[in-house]
Amino acid sequence: MSRNWTHLVRFLAKEDGQVHLGQIDAAKVPDVGLALEKGETVSANLITGSVFDGVVTDKSLTISQLLSPLTTEDVPIIRCMGLNYRDHAREANMPIPEEPVLFIKPRTALNGPAPAKINVPKIAQDGTSDYEAELSFVIGKSGKDIPKEKALEHVLGYTASNDVSARAQQFKNSQWCYSKGFDGSAPIGPVLVSSSAIADPHNLRIRAILNGETVQESNTKEIIFDVATIVSWLSQGTTLERGTIVMTGTGPGVGAMRNPKIVLKDGDDMRVEVEKIGTLINTVYYE
Amino acid sequence: MSRNWTHLVRFLAKEDGQVHLGQIDAAKVPDVGLALEKGETVSANLITGSVFDGVVTDKSLTISQLLSPLTTEDVPIIRCMGLNYRDHAREANMPIPEEPVLFIKPRTALNGPAPAKINVPKIAQDGTSDYEAELSFVIGKSGKDIPKEKALEHVLGYTASNDVSARAQQFKNSQWCYSKGFDGSAPIGPVLVSSSAIADPHNLRIRAILNGETVQESNTKEIIFDVATIVSWLSQGTTLERGTIVMTGTGPGVGAMRNPKIVLKDGDDMRVEVEKIGTLINTVYYE
Repeated sequence: MSRNWTHLVRFLAKEDGQVHLGQIDAAKVPDVGLALEKGETVSANLITGSVFDGVVTDKSLTISQLLSPLTTEDVPIIRCMGLNYRDHAREANMPIPEEPVLFIKPRTALNGPAPAKINVPKIAQDGTSDYEAELSFVIGKSGKDIPKEKALEHVLGYTASNDVSARAQQFKNSQWCYSKGFDGSAPIGPVLVSSSAIADPHNLRIRAILNGETVQESNTKEIIFDVATIVSWLSQGTTLERGTIVMTGTGPGVGAMRNPKIVLKDGDDMRVEVEKIGTLINTVYYE
Repeated sequence: MSRNWTHLVRFLAKEDGQVHLGQIDAAKVPDVGLALEKGETVSANLITGSVFDGVVTDKSLTISQLLSPLTTEDVPIIRCMGLNYRDHAREANMPIPEEPVLFIKPRTALNGPAPAKINVPKIAQDGTSDYEAELSFVIGKSGKDIPKEKALEHVLGYTASNDVSARAQQFKNSQWCYSKGFDGSAPIGPVLVSSSAIADPHNLRIRAILNGETVQESNTKEIIFDVATIVSWLSQGTTLERGTIVMTGTGPGVGAMRNPKIVLKDGDDMRVEVEKIGTLINTVYYE
């Protein structure tokens, strides 16, 4: 049988305390992040195999704790698009870019949904830790020089993510890899939704919610370089490895561009909500 | 027994056609790249174990072909320092930076010494493919928040490298990850020399030689942020994984800054020579 999951979670099960891959029934549980927070009992049908070839079984277990849907063994690298929302470019008074902007987070940045925390390291506790709500996609099939018309065949699925950024480091350095690459600076989740279950990734409401207040609100239709364009562009002369996470950029309202500015503080409740995917919940933790 | 190699090569052996790790006798063969080019017979004592724990044995085999001393299984990521040579900053009329500059190449950029070629993909055949001769070091022991005084304990060894760059892509994009991240854009070699065999990594002559002409000439004493500083800085809030390659930046004379400019052309003979390490030889190949 070939891969047939549509809403994948990785989780610790109540029954055996072990890590499993599971399928959520999205009709019953449209937002597994919120459901678990409310204390609802959520079960998942176990998936045999890996994220890349997993098959849903009849056996179900109860979720005691969500984990990142992908592990650092699945993910070779995290590729991130900068300045990729029209409304964000307008907010920043910048022209619509003619070329995508790529920076890279190492796999060690990978993080998961609550109870995993956004850990802010000492070097970024300078009052400028910031959020960026982003739609991410995952490469399911490696490829190089992928034409745009075949690009979506390489996309395994979509998830919500937060491109956590240390603005003080970012603004004093021409390159963004340092300020955006700290351990845990790439939370994803709560669920990985297959491409088959998201007909159009460019019509999804996306929000960042900080301590209950909506601080970013946009729609992925504001994305300048769409998923197929990104896949094709990234793969020119470059092998896009299976498991690569691609963060697609953020809309208006990041903390550094607000007046007054917003900074992530120890204990903050930080959420990224993406339509059809659910809510990625994290508490901010100053290490 | 613990790791005891000092001059490590990965190679195909004449006798069995297989891939091996081996130790070069540097007293007899100070530059394995040049020796093989001249047609000399070079043998290597086999190393058991991995690059990270390898032990030299008595058994020796003859090198038929050099490979990259590290594979993409060894290397999670390639971290690169920008603007890290005093003489390069002077050439570019730029102030000495107060903070290191980091960009990242994916592991898929890893490349080896001749007969491996510097493959220039179609997207970078726009007349601006360029070289950057660099000293690289390899992390032998993972770590995070490493203090400067313990930093050198994490360095496995040193090699020569070329930070191959597509200038047209680089200069039209604020971030360098795309223009410097193509497959094969990070040749390293010919040998990995252990930290124990390089008393001072900041006093090594380094040259780039293109078609027999010296186009870059400097010394690693021109490095602004030294190896210990780089290791400590990179590891703040970030796990530096074992096998990470760190390219330490380049001196004056890159093609894009010369008058007239120099561009890597199909068939060019490109060399990076580093004292105590030898010559990394590659032919440029337009795919």
